[in-house]
Amino acid sequence: MLVRDISEMKSIVKDLKRKGKTIGFVPTMGYLHEGHVSLIRSSRKDNDITVVSIFVNPLQFGENEDLDRYPRDLKRDQGICEKEGVDYLFYPSYKDMYPEGFSTYVTVEGITDKLCGAFRPGHFRGVTTVVMKLFNIVKPDRAYFGLKDYQQFKVIQKMVRDLNMDVQVIGCPIVREKDGLAMSSRNKYLSDKEREAAVNISRSLFEAKRLFESGVTDAERLKERIIEIIMSSPEVREIQYVELVDPENLESKEKAEKGDIIAIAVFIGNTRLIDNIQL
Amino acid sequence: MLVRDISEMKSIVKDLKRKGKTIGFVPTMGYLHEGHVSLIRSSRKDNDITVVSIFVNPLQFGENEDLDRYPRDLKRDQGICEKEGVDYLFYPSYKDMYPEGFSTYVTVEGITDKLCGAFRPGHFRGVTTVVMKLFNIVKPDRAYFGLKDYQQFKVIQKMVRDLNMDVQVIGCPIVREKDGLAMSSRNKYLSDKEREAAVNISRSLFEAKRLFESGVTDAERLKERIIEIIMSSPEVREIQYVELVDPENLESKEKAEKGDIIAIAVFIGNTRLIDNIQL
Repeated sequence: MLVRDISEMKSIVKDLKRKGKTIGFVPTMGYLHEGHVSLIRSSRKDNDITVVSIFVNPLQFGENEDLDRYPRDLKRDQGICEKEGVDYLFYPSYKDMYPEGFSTYVTVEGITDKLCGAFRPGHFRGVTTVVMKLFNIVKPDRAYFGLKDYQQFKVIQKMVRDLNMDVQVIGCPIVREKDGLAMSSRNKYLSDKEREAAVNISRSLFEAKRLFESGVTDAERLKERIIEIIMSSPEVREIQYVELVDPENLESKEKAEKGDIIAIAVFIGNTRLIDNIQL
Repeated sequence: MLVRDISEMKSIVKDLKRKGKTIGFVPTMGYLHEGHVSLIRSSRKDNDITVVSIFVNPLQFGENEDLDRYPRDLKRDQGICEKEGVDYLFYPSYKDMYPEGFSTYVTVEGITDKLCGAFRPGHFRGVTTVVMKLFNIVKPDRAYFGLKDYQQFKVIQKMVRDLNMDVQVIGCPIVREKDGLAMSSRNKYLSDKEREAAVNISRSLFEAKRLFESGVTDAERLKERIIEIIMSSPEVREIQYVELVDPENLESKEKAEKGDIIAIAVFIGNTRLIDNIQL
């Protein structure tokens, strides 16, 4: 069922709570792919009711980013949600989410300065603010996020803990195309040639993990190998970052340990893609 | 019943919600006075259960402010709560509210730049952050704030609206001593002479309202008269601000209209007192 109105969504949730139903929530920006579907399936397994939201959140896009061309296809998304047994598809409007005079923000400091946060000022403030709003509307027992956006997952987990929110924040494994490319709505932007180059991102991460497992722990060596693989294609405009980080505080590390994360952001043409792997 | 533990408070609230009880909440910094008592009484009238919190929130004090000497008397406060029929007195510790690594903040922009916000940088960020936390723990249906802190009341109302929170934020009339001085835990700081001077704050506001009702609408004339009355005492160190403002957005005005607010902050000796009146 499609719900556009915030107060209607709230009253549905109120009713569900009264009936003692548990609510699983999958917040998205739409243009759903297999990664989203895996979140939906996890939610359906754990909860009585599953709510998916689609909201392309202007607050989390920088000025020169892709807000205007971000892919949108509500009909298609509705079809996927129906097929997957989603109970409610919440699709609020910009002006209802950010009415005139809106001026309240949630910020997580520290952990948001690193990785993507260092290159996308204000991005995580936009994410935490909209997620706080969505959580307050949908009041989920559990919320599901893809681990492709590992930093986002940790930032939201931190917000929830710091602000004593009740929702359980669950990270779900990255879903990849057959050749390894992490699923992303932004993959649609890639030309055929760029798509070919994009596969090197995941390939470089798998290779780094293999190196680590064969005994290489020096961050510089791991990063060099990753850069070498990714930069082998002329379609790659820039590696924005490649970092070995602690899985909890996202601080950079010099020596890799089991459980650490290697995270990457790459521009292939004009398309910014991210990926990561846990060692 | 005194509750110190956050998760115990949460589980009490969960149980109350399951039983369908409505919760009224009075967040305070303790050292309760008649103003707080009026909030408690409003809450008891409107709700099944009343929760009072006492937490001297370090986040809302500036570096050179009175955090260390802020008056505290839990035994006395417990007595008042018991007498007034408060169901739960929530008394969390600093280290539970702000554990090591805490780094998430809620900010309301715009409305917090004015009046007290202009002189107490970070103050309202501290207020909104702690109130967000307390609301998430206590999950009140209604929360009660004294209108002496008019700006605080409007800031919290804005936070709740902007972030789609469910709690109803209720402002209760200023409670005054017999001679007019607005009740405040900080009145305790005043020497006898300062206490005498302090009465001029409310006296000047009543006089300004009388002038307005007799036809004076010019903000400068109203402010001049207020300053004249307050500065008549040598105990007054400084008038930090006296402003005629719009009751909603707190923007300064030049012509007074019915419903506008005149707000004042004054240093009497080292004690900062605030007061306001609605025209």
